[in-house]
Amino acid sequence: MLEDVVDQVIQFRDERDWKQFHNPKDLAISISLEAAELLENFQWTGSETDAPEKKISIVEELADVLIYSIMMADALQVDVNEIIKEKLKRNGEKYQVEKAYGSKKKYTELSK
Amino acid sequence: MLEDVVDQVIQFRDERDWKQFHNPKDLAISISLEAAELLENFQWTGSETDAPEKKISIVEELADVLIYSIMMADALQVDVNEIIKEKLKRNGEKYQVEKAYGSKKKYTELSK
Amino acid sequence: MLEDVVDQVIQFRDERDWKQFHNPKDLAISISLEAAELLENFQWTGSETDAPEKKISIVEELADVLIYSIMMADALQVDVNEIIKEKLKRNGEKYQVEKAYGSKKKYTELSK
Amino acid sequence: MLEDVVDQVIQFRDERDWKQFHNPKDLAISISLEAAELLENFQWTGSETDAPEKKISIVEELADVLIYSIMMADALQVDVNEIIKEKLKRNGEKYQVEKAYGSKKKYTELSK
Repeated sequence: MLEDVVDQVIQFRDERDWKQFHNPKDLAISISLEAAELLENFQWTGSETDAPEKKISIVEELADVLIYSIMMADALQVDVNEIIKEKLKRNGEKYQVEKAYGSKKKYTELSK
Repeated sequence: MLEDVVDQVIQFRDERDWKQFHNPKDLAISISLEAAELLENFQWTGSETDAPEKKISIVEELADVLIYSIMMADALQVDVNEIIKEKLKRNGEKYQVEKAYGSKKKYTELSK
Repeated sequence: MLEDVVDQVIQFRDERDWKQFHNPKDLAISISLEAAELLENFQWTGSETDAPEKKISIVEELADVLIYSIMMADALQVDVNEIIKEKLKRNGEKYQVEKAYGSKKKYTELSK
Repeated sequence: MLEDVVDQVIQFRDERDWKQFHNPKDLAISISLEAAELLENFQWTGSETDAPEKKISIVEELADVLIYSIMMADALQVDVNEIIKEKLKRNGEKYQVEKAYGSKKKYTELSK
Protein backbone atom coordinates (compact mmCIF):
# COMPACT_ATOMS: atom_id res chain seq x y z
CA MET A 1 0.00 0.00 0.00
CA LEU A 2 1.35 3.44 -0.76
CA GLU A 3 2.36 5.20 2.45
CA ASP A 4 0.09 8.16 1.77
CA VAL A 5 -2.89 5.85 1.22
CA VAL A 6 -2.28 4.10 4.53
CA ASP A 7 -1.93 7.54 6.12
CA GLN A 8 -5.22 8.67 4.60
CA VAL A 9 -7.01 5.62 6.06
CA ILE A 10 -5.56 6.24 9.51
CA GLN A 11 -6.37 9.95 9.27
CA PHE A 12 -9.96 9.09 8.28
CA ARG A 13 -10.22 6.93 11.41
CA ASP A 14 -8.58 9.43 13.75
CA GLU A 15 -10.55 12.45 12.53
CA ARG A 16 -13.62 10.54 13.75
CA ASP A 17 -12.02 9.31 16.96
CA TRP A 18 -12.82 5.72 15.97
CA LYS A 19 -9.60 4.08 17.16
CA GLN A 20 -11.29 3.48 20.52
CA PHE A 21 -13.66 0.99 18.82
CA HIS A 22 -11.02 -0.75 16.72
CA ASN A 23 -10.23 -3.84 18.74
CA PRO A 24 -8.93 -6.72 16.59
CA LYS A 25 -11.99 -8.94 17.12
CA ASP A 26 -14.47 -6.33 15.87
CA LEU A 27 -12.13 -5.39 13.02
CA ALA A 28 -12.01 -9.06 11.97
CA ILE A 29 -15.82 -9.10 12.09
CA SER A 30 -15.90 -5.91 10.00
CA ILE A 31 -13.58 -7.32 7.33
CA SER A 32 -15.81 -10.39 7.19
CA LEU A 33 -18.95 -8.25 6.80
CA GLU A 34 -17.42 -6.13 4.03
CA ALA A 35 -16.29 -9.33 2.26
CA ALA A 36 -19.92 -10.50 2.42
CA GLU A 37 -21.15 -7.23 0.91
CA LEU A 38 -18.61 -7.72 -1.87
CA LEU A 39 -19.80 -11.30 -2.40
CA GLU A 40 -23.46 -10.21 -2.40
CA ASN A 41 -22.82 -8.68 -5.82
CA PHE A 42 -22.41 -12.20 -7.19
CA GLN A 43 -25.41 -13.85 -5.49
CA TRP A 44 -27.61 -15.56 -8.11
CA THR A 45 -25.32 -14.32 -10.88
CA GLY A 46 -22.31 -15.36 -12.88
CA SER A 47 -18.98 -13.66 -12.73
CA GLU A 48 -19.67 -10.85 -15.20
CA THR A 49 -18.90 -7.39 -13.85
CA ASP A 50 -19.67 -5.32 -16.93
CA ALA A 51 -22.90 -3.68 -15.77
CA PRO A 52 -21.61 -0.22 -14.74
CA GLU A 53 -23.67 -0.08 -11.55
CA LYS A 54 -22.54 -3.55 -10.52
CA LYS A 55 -18.90 -2.77 -11.29
CA ILE A 56 -19.05 0.35 -9.11
CA SER A 57 -20.62 -1.57 -6.22
CA ILE A 58 -18.00 -4.35 -6.47
CA VAL A 59 -15.10 -1.91 -6.54
CA GLU A 60 -16.49 0.03 -3.56
CA GLU A 61 -16.95 -3.08 -1.42
CA LEU A 62 -13.49 -4.32 -2.38
CA ALA A 63 -12.13 -0.94 -1.26
CA ASP A 64 -13.92 -1.31 2.09
CA VAL A 65 -12.28 -4.71 2.60
CA LEU A 66 -8.91 -3.08 1.94
CA ILE A 67 -9.63 -0.09 4.20
CA TYR A 68 -10.60 -2.29 7.16
CA SER A 69 -7.58 -4.50 6.48
CA ILE A 70 -5.30 -1.46 6.68
CA MET A 71 -7.01 -0.41 9.92
CA MET A 72 -6.49 -3.91 11.34
CA ALA A 73 -2.82 -3.92 10.36
CA ASP A 74 -2.48 -0.62 12.19
CA ALA A 75 -4.26 -2.03 15.25
CA LEU A 76 -1.84 -4.99 15.18
CA GLN A 77 1.07 -2.61 14.57
CA VAL A 78 2.25 -4.46 11.48
CA ASP A 79 3.07 -3.06 8.04
CA VAL A 80 0.68 -4.15 5.26
CA ASN A 81 3.40 -4.34 2.64
CA GLU A 82 5.71 -6.34 4.89
CA ILE A 83 3.09 -8.91 5.90
CA ILE A 84 2.06 -9.43 2.26
CA LYS A 85 5.67 -10.06 1.24
CA GLU A 86 6.16 -12.42 4.19
CA LYS A 87 2.96 -14.35 3.39
CA LEU A 88 3.88 -14.68 -0.28
CA LYS A 89 7.05 -16.46 0.86
CA ARG A 90 5.06 -18.83 3.07
CA ASN A 91 2.48 -19.44 0.32
CA GLY A 92 5.32 -20.08 -2.09
CA GLU A 93 6.49 -22.96 0.12
CA LYS A 94 2.96 -24.37 0.36
CA TYR A 95 2.32 -23.90 -3.35
CA GLN A 96 5.60 -24.74 -5.06
CA VAL A 97 5.50 -23.74 -8.72
CA GLU A 98 6.24 -27.20 -10.11
CA LYS A 99 3.41 -28.76 -8.10
CA ALA A 100 0.87 -25.94 -8.16
CA TYR A 101 1.30 -24.87 -11.80
CA GLY A 102 -2.10 -24.70 -13.47
CA SER A 103 -3.73 -26.50 -10.53
CA LYS A 104 -6.53 -25.20 -8.32
CA LYS A 105 -5.95 -27.90 -5.70
CA LYS A 106 -5.44 -26.85 -2.08
CA TYR A 107 -1.82 -27.30 -0.94
CA THR A 108 -2.99 -30.11 1.35
CA GLU A 109 -4.08 -32.02 -1.75
CA LEU A 110 -1.00 -31.33 -3.90
CA SER A 111 1.08 -34.45 -4.53
CA LYS A 112 3.78 -34.56 -1.88
CA MET B 1 -0.05 -0.81 -1.89
CA LEU B 2 3.54 -0.41 -2.96
CA GLU B 3 3.90 -1.10 -6.67
CA ASP B 4 6.49 -3.81 -6.12
CA VAL B 5 4.22 -5.58 -3.63
CA VAL B 6 1.34 -5.59 -6.10
CA ASP B 7 3.78 -6.84 -8.72
CA GLN B 8 4.94 -9.64 -6.42
CA VAL B 9 1.34 -10.77 -5.89
CA ILE B 10 0.63 -10.81 -9.61
CA GLN B 11 3.93 -12.58 -10.30
CA PHE B 12 3.04 -15.22 -7.67
CA ARG B 13 -0.24 -15.82 -9.49
CA ASP B 14 1.24 -15.88 -12.97
CA GLU B 15 4.17 -18.19 -12.09
CA ARG B 16 1.48 -20.72 -11.18
CA ASP B 17 -0.75 -19.96 -14.18
CA TRP B 18 -3.65 -19.26 -11.83
CA LYS B 19 -5.14 -16.27 -13.66
CA GLN B 20 -7.35 -18.71 -15.59
CA PHE B 21 -9.20 -19.50 -12.32
CA HIS B 22 -9.46 -15.92 -11.09
CA ASN B 23 -12.97 -14.93 -12.12
CA PRO B 24 -14.44 -12.18 -9.91
CA LYS B 25 -17.10 -14.41 -8.35
CA ASP B 26 -14.61 -17.01 -7.10
CA LEU B 27 -12.22 -14.27 -5.99
CA ALA B 28 -15.03 -12.69 -3.95
CA ILE B 29 -15.69 -16.12 -2.43
CA SER B 30 -11.97 -16.49 -1.68
CA ILE B 31 -11.76 -13.11 0.07
CA SER B 32 -14.78 -14.11 2.14
CA LEU B 33 -13.16 -17.46 3.07
CA GLU B 34 -9.88 -15.81 4.09
CA ALA B 35 -11.81 -13.25 6.14
CA ALA B 36 -13.49 -16.18 7.93
CA GLU B 37 -10.09 -17.79 8.65
CA LEU B 38 -8.99 -14.46 10.09
CA LEU B 39 -12.14 -14.26 12.21
CA GLU B 40 -11.71 -17.85 13.41
CA ASN B 41 -8.79 -16.63 15.53
CA PHE B 42 -11.31 -14.73 17.66
CA GLN B 43 -13.95 -17.47 18.03
CA TRP B 44 -14.71 -18.06 21.74
CA THR B 45 -12.09 -15.49 22.71
CA GLY B 46 -11.71 -11.82 23.48
CA SER B 47 -9.76 -9.41 21.37
CA GLU B 48 -6.31 -10.06 22.83
CA THR B 49 -3.66 -10.86 20.24
CA ASP B 50 -0.63 -11.17 22.48
CA ALA B 51 -0.13 -14.93 22.32
CA PRO B 52 2.72 -15.16 19.75
CA GLU B 53 1.17 -18.13 17.89
CA LYS B 54 -2.20 -16.38 17.69
CA LYS B 55 -0.62 -13.12 16.54
CA ILE B 56 1.22 -14.93 13.74
CA SER B 57 -1.96 -16.69 12.60
CA ILE B 58 -3.93 -13.43 12.61
CA VAL B 59 -1.28 -11.57 10.63
CA GLU B 60 -1.01 -14.38 8.07
CA GLU B 61 -4.76 -14.53 7.48
CA LEU B 62 -4.95 -10.75 7.23
CA ALA B 63 -2.19 -10.93 4.61
CA ASP B 64 -4.21 -13.52 2.66
CA VAL B 65 -7.22 -11.19 2.64
CA LEU B 66 -4.97 -8.45 1.25
CA ILE B 67 -3.37 -10.76 -1.34
CA TYR B 68 -6.73 -11.93 -2.71
CA SER B 69 -7.97 -8.33 -2.69
CA ILE B 70 -4.99 -7.30 -4.83
CA MET B 71 -5.70 -10.20 -7.18
CA MET B 72 -9.34 -9.14 -7.44
CA ALA B 73 -8.39 -5.52 -8.16
CA ASP B 74 -6.17 -6.84 -10.94
CA ALA B 75 -8.99 -9.00 -12.32
CA LEU B 76 -11.24 -5.92 -12.30
CA GLN B 77 -8.42 -3.83 -13.80
CA VAL B 78 -8.58 -1.21 -11.07
CA ASP B 79 -5.75 0.23 -8.97
CA VAL B 80 -5.90 -0.67 -5.26
CA ASN B 81 -4.56 2.69 -4.13
CA GLU B 82 -6.95 4.61 -6.35
CA ILE B 83 -10.08 2.73 -5.24
CA ILE B 84 -9.15 3.17 -1.58
CA LYS B 85 -8.73 6.93 -2.03
CA GLU B 86 -12.02 7.12 -3.95
CA LYS B 87 -13.89 5.13 -1.30
CA LEU B 88 -12.49 7.24 1.53
CA LYS B 89 -14.07 10.25 -0.20
CA ARG B 90 -17.44 8.47 -0.45
CA ASN B 91 -17.22 7.27 3.17
CA GLY B 92 -16.33 10.79 4.22
CA GLU B 93 -19.64 11.99 2.80
CA LYS B 94 -21.55 9.18 4.55
CA TYR B 95 -19.66 9.70 7.80
CA GLN B 96 -19.18 13.43 8.15
CA VAL B 97 -16.76 14.24 10.94
CA GLU B 98 -19.13 16.41 12.94
CA LYS B 99 -21.83 13.71 12.96
CA ALA B 100 -19.66 10.60 13.18
CA TYR B 101 -17.11 11.84 15.71
CA GLY B 102 -16.76 9.28 18.50
CA SER B 103 -19.84 7.42 17.29
CA LYS B 104 -20.05 3.79 16.17
CA LYS B 105 -23.49 4.30 14.61
CA LYS B 106 -24.00 3.25 11.01
CA TYR B 107 -24.34 6.24 8.66
CA THR B 108 -27.98 5.31 8.13
CA GLU B 109 -28.54 5.95 11.84
CA LEU B 110 -26.54 9.18 12.12
CA SER B 111 -28.74 12.21 12.77
CA LYS B 112 -29.48 13.83 9.44
CA MET C 1 -36.80 -28.97 13.65
CA LEU C 2 -38.03 -32.16 15.24
CA GLU C 3 -38.14 -31.79 19.01
CA ASP C 4 -35.89 -34.80 19.58
CA VAL C 5 -33.30 -33.39 17.15
CA VAL C 6 -33.23 -30.07 18.99
CA ASP C 7 -32.96 -32.02 22.23
CA GLN C 8 -30.03 -34.03 20.87
CA VAL C 9 -28.20 -30.82 19.92
CA ILE C 10 -28.73 -29.31 23.38
CA GLN C 11 -27.75 -32.59 25.03
CA PHE C 12 -24.56 -32.68 22.94
CA ARG C 13 -23.72 -29.18 24.19
CA ASP C 14 -24.59 -29.85 27.83
CA GLU C 15 -22.75 -33.19 28.05
CA ARG C 16 -19.61 -31.14 27.25
CA ASP C 17 -20.52 -28.23 29.52
CA TRP C 18 -20.23 -25.84 26.55
CA LYS C 19 -23.20 -23.58 27.36
CA GLN C 20 -20.79 -21.36 29.34
CA PHE C 21 -19.08 -20.41 26.04
CA HIS C 22 -22.27 -19.94 24.02
CA ASN C 23 -22.77 -16.19 24.14
CA PRO C 24 -24.75 -14.87 21.14
CA LYS C 25 -21.82 -12.96 19.62
CA ASP C 26 -19.53 -16.00 19.48
CA LEU C 27 -22.40 -18.18 18.26
CA ALA C 28 -23.03 -15.69 15.42
CA ILE C 29 -19.30 -15.87 14.61
CA SER C 30 -19.47 -19.68 14.67
CA ILE C 31 -22.45 -19.80 12.30
CA SER C 32 -20.54 -17.48 9.97
CA LEU C 33 -17.43 -19.71 10.12
CA GLU C 34 -19.42 -22.89 9.40
CA ALA C 35 -21.16 -21.12 6.50
CA ALA C 36 -17.69 -20.30 5.13
CA GLU C 37 -16.62 -23.95 5.44
CA LEU C 38 -19.75 -24.89 3.53
CA LEU C 39 -18.98 -22.29 0.86
CA GLU C 40 -15.36 -23.45 0.60
CA ASN C 41 -16.67 -26.57 -1.15
CA PHE C 42 -17.64 -24.35 -4.09
CA GLN C 43 -14.46 -22.26 -4.34
CA TRP C 44 -13.06 -22.45 -7.90
CA THR C 45 -15.84 -24.81 -8.91
CA GLY C 46 -19.29 -24.85 -10.37
CA SER C 47 -22.37 -25.96 -8.54
CA GLU C 48 -22.08 -29.69 -9.14
CA THR C 49 -22.26 -31.78 -5.98
CA ASP C 50 -22.08 -35.24 -7.48
CA ALA C 51 -18.56 -36.20 -6.40
CA PRO C 52 -19.34 -38.41 -3.37
CA GLU C 53 -16.56 -36.92 -1.21
CA LYS C 54 -17.67 -33.38 -2.03
CA LYS C 55 -21.33 -34.21 -1.37
CA ILE C 56 -20.45 -35.61 2.06
CA SER C 57 -18.40 -32.53 2.96
CA ILE C 58 -21.18 -30.18 1.83
CA VAL C 59 -23.83 -32.05 3.81
CA GLU C 60 -21.66 -32.13 6.94
CA GLU C 61 -20.94 -28.40 6.83
CA LEU C 62 -24.60 -27.64 6.19
CA ALA C 63 -25.42 -29.74 9.25
CA ASP C 64 -22.93 -27.73 11.32
CA VAL C 65 -24.63 -24.50 10.26
CA LEU C 66 -27.95 -25.99 11.41
CA ILE C 67 -26.49 -27.28 14.69
CA TYR C 68 -25.03 -23.89 15.63
CA SER C 69 -28.27 -22.20 14.58
CA ILE C 70 -30.21 -24.45 16.95
CA MET C 71 -27.72 -23.66 19.72
CA MET C 72 -28.13 -19.94 19.06
CA ALA C 73 -31.94 -20.21 19.11
CA ASP C 74 -31.60 -21.91 22.48
CA ALA C 75 -29.25 -19.19 23.75
CA LEU C 76 -31.83 -16.60 22.62
CA GLN C 77 -34.64 -18.70 24.12
CA VAL C 78 -36.61 -18.77 20.90
CA ASP C 79 -38.11 -21.77 19.11
CA VAL C 80 -36.53 -22.57 15.72
CA ASN C 81 -39.80 -23.67 14.15
CA GLU C 82 -41.64 -20.60 15.39
CA ILE C 83 -39.04 -18.08 14.18
CA ILE C 84 -38.95 -19.73 10.74
CA LYS C 85 -42.75 -19.52 10.42
CA GLU C 86 -42.70 -15.90 11.61
CA LYS C 87 -39.93 -14.94 9.17
CA LEU C 88 -41.69 -16.63 6.24
CA LYS C 89 -44.64 -14.31 6.93
CA ARG C 90 -42.37 -11.24 6.94
CA ASN C 91 -40.57 -12.42 3.79
CA GLY C 92 -43.92 -13.03 2.17
CA GLU C 93 -44.74 -9.35 2.63
CA LYS C 94 -41.38 -8.28 1.22
CA TYR C 95 -41.59 -10.77 -1.65
CA GLN C 96 -45.22 -10.77 -2.72
CA VAL C 97 -45.91 -13.63 -5.10
CA GLU C 98 -47.20 -11.47 -7.96
CA LYS C 99 -44.10 -9.25 -7.89
CA ALA C 100 -41.45 -11.82 -6.99
CA TYR C 101 -42.63 -14.68 -9.20
CA GLY C 102 -39.72 -15.99 -11.25
CA SER C 103 -37.57 -12.98 -10.27
CA LYS C 104 -34.26 -13.05 -8.42
CA LYS C 105 -34.40 -9.32 -7.69
CA LYS C 106 -33.98 -8.17 -4.11
CA TYR C 107 -37.26 -6.91 -2.59
CA THR C 108 -35.80 -3.40 -2.58
CA GLU C 109 -35.61 -3.61 -6.37
CA LEU C 110 -39.04 -5.16 -6.99
CA SER C 111 -41.42 -2.77 -8.73
CA LYS C 112 -43.49 -1.01 -6.06
CA MET D 1 -37.25 -29.33 11.66
CA LEU D 2 -40.96 -29.99 11.87
CA GLU D 3 -42.22 -31.44 8.60
CA ASP D 4 -44.81 -28.71 8.16
CA VAL D 5 -42.14 -26.01 8.64
CA VAL D 6 -39.94 -27.58 5.98
CA ASP D 7 -43.02 -27.80 3.78
CA GLN D 8 -43.80 -24.12 4.33
CA VAL D 9 -40.27 -23.15 3.31
CA ILE D 10 -40.46 -25.22 0.12
CA GLN D 11 -43.94 -23.88 -0.62
CA PHE D 12 -42.66 -20.32 -0.17
CA ARG D 13 -39.93 -21.04 -2.72
CA ASP D 14 -42.20 -22.81 -5.19
CA GLU D 15 -44.99 -20.22 -5.07
CA ARG D 16 -42.37 -17.77 -6.39
CA ASP D 17 -40.86 -20.21 -8.88
CA TRP D 18 -37.43 -19.70 -7.29
CA LYS D 19 -36.20 -23.31 -7.46
CA GLN D 20 -34.68 -22.50 -10.86
CA PHE D 21 -32.18 -20.18 -9.13
CA HIS D 22 -31.37 -22.51 -6.24
CA ASN D 23 -28.15 -24.14 -7.34
CA PRO D 24 -26.01 -25.33 -4.39
CA LYS D 25 -23.22 -22.79 -4.99
CA ASP D 26 -25.53 -19.76 -4.84
CA LEU D 27 -27.39 -21.26 -1.88
CA ALA D 28 -24.08 -21.65 -0.04
CA ILE D 29 -23.32 -18.00 -0.86
CA SER D 30 -26.78 -17.02 0.41
CA ILE D 31 -26.34 -18.86 3.72
CA SER D 32 -22.99 -17.10 4.12
CA LEU D 33 -24.58 -13.69 3.41
CA GLU D 34 -27.42 -14.27 5.89
CA ALA D 35 -24.88 -15.40 8.50
CA ALA D 36 -23.05 -12.09 7.93
CA GLU D 37 -26.27 -10.13 8.41
CA LEU D 38 -26.77 -12.02 11.67
CA LEU D 39 -23.20 -11.24 12.73
CA GLU D 40 -23.60 -7.57 11.82
CA ASN D 41 -25.84 -7.22 14.87
CA PHE D 42 -22.77 -7.79 17.04
CA GLN D 43 -20.32 -5.50 15.21
CA TRP D 44 -18.76 -3.03 17.68
CA THR D 45 -20.88 -4.46 20.50
CA GLY D 46 -20.80 -7.06 23.20
CA SER D 47 -23.02 -10.07 23.32
CA GLU D 48 -26.07 -8.47 24.91
CA THR D 49 -29.30 -9.05 23.02
CA ASP D 50 -31.73 -7.35 25.35
CA ALA D 51 -32.53 -4.25 23.28
CA PRO D 52 -35.91 -5.27 21.76
CA GLU D 53 -35.07 -3.96 18.28
CA LYS D 54 -31.72 -5.75 18.28
CA LYS D 55 -33.27 -8.98 19.52
CA ILE D 56 -35.85 -8.89 16.72
CA SER D 57 -33.17 -8.29 14.09
CA ILE D 58 -31.02 -11.13 15.43
CA VAL D 59 -33.91 -13.58 15.50
CA GLU D 60 -34.97 -12.63 11.96
CA GLU D 61 -31.48 -13.09 10.52
CA LEU D 62 -31.09 -16.40 12.36
CA ALA D 63 -34.38 -17.48 10.80
CA ASP D 64 -33.08 -16.55 7.34
CA VAL D 65 -29.99 -18.71 7.90
CA LEU D 66 -32.30 -21.60 8.81
CA ILE D 67 -34.63 -20.98 5.85
CA TYR D 68 -31.77 -21.01 3.32
CA SER D 69 -30.29 -24.07 5.03
CA ILE D 70 -33.61 -25.90 4.59
CA MET D 71 -33.71 -24.83 0.93
CA MET D 72 -30.17 -26.11 0.46
CA ALA D 73 -30.98 -29.45 2.09
CA ASP D 74 -33.90 -29.72 -0.34
CA ALA D 75 -31.65 -28.89 -3.30
CA LEU D 76 -29.23 -31.61 -2.11
CA GLN D 77 -32.16 -33.97 -1.50
CA VAL D 78 -31.16 -34.67 2.08
CA ASP D 79 -33.31 -34.51 5.22
CA VAL D 80 -32.35 -31.73 7.67
CA ASN D 81 -33.17 -33.80 10.74
CA GLU D 82 -31.21 -36.80 9.46
CA ILE D 83 -28.07 -34.84 8.57
CA ILE D 84 -28.08 -33.12 11.98
CA LYS D 85 -28.32 -36.47 13.77
CA GLU D 86 -25.57 -37.91 11.58
CA LYS D 87 -23.28 -34.94 12.16
CA LEU D 88 -23.81 -35.03 15.92
CA LYS D 89 -22.47 -38.60 15.81
CA ARG D 90 -19.39 -37.49 13.86
CA ASN D 91 -18.85 -34.50 16.14
CA GLY D 92 -19.20 -36.78 19.13
CA GLU D 93 -16.24 -38.80 17.86
CA LYS D 94 -14.19 -35.64 17.29
CA TYR D 95 -15.23 -34.14 20.61
CA GLN D 96 -15.33 -37.03 23.06
CA VAL D 97 -16.97 -35.99 26.32
CA GLU D 98 -14.04 -36.86 28.57
CA LYS D 99 -11.63 -34.79 26.45
CA ALA D 100 -13.91 -31.94 25.40
CA TYR D 101 -15.70 -31.39 28.72
CA GLY D 102 -15.57 -27.72 29.64
CA SER D 103 -12.99 -27.04 26.93
CA LYS D 104 -13.31 -24.66 23.98
CA LYS D 105 -10.32 -26.16 22.19
CA LYS D 106 -10.73 -27.31 18.61
CA TYR D 107 -10.73 -31.12 18.30
CA THR D 108 -7.39 -30.89 16.51
CA GLU D 109 -5.93 -29.43 19.71
CA LEU D 110 -7.57 -31.82 22.18
CA SER D 111 -5.04 -34.10 23.89
CA LYS D 112 -4.88 -37.32 21.90
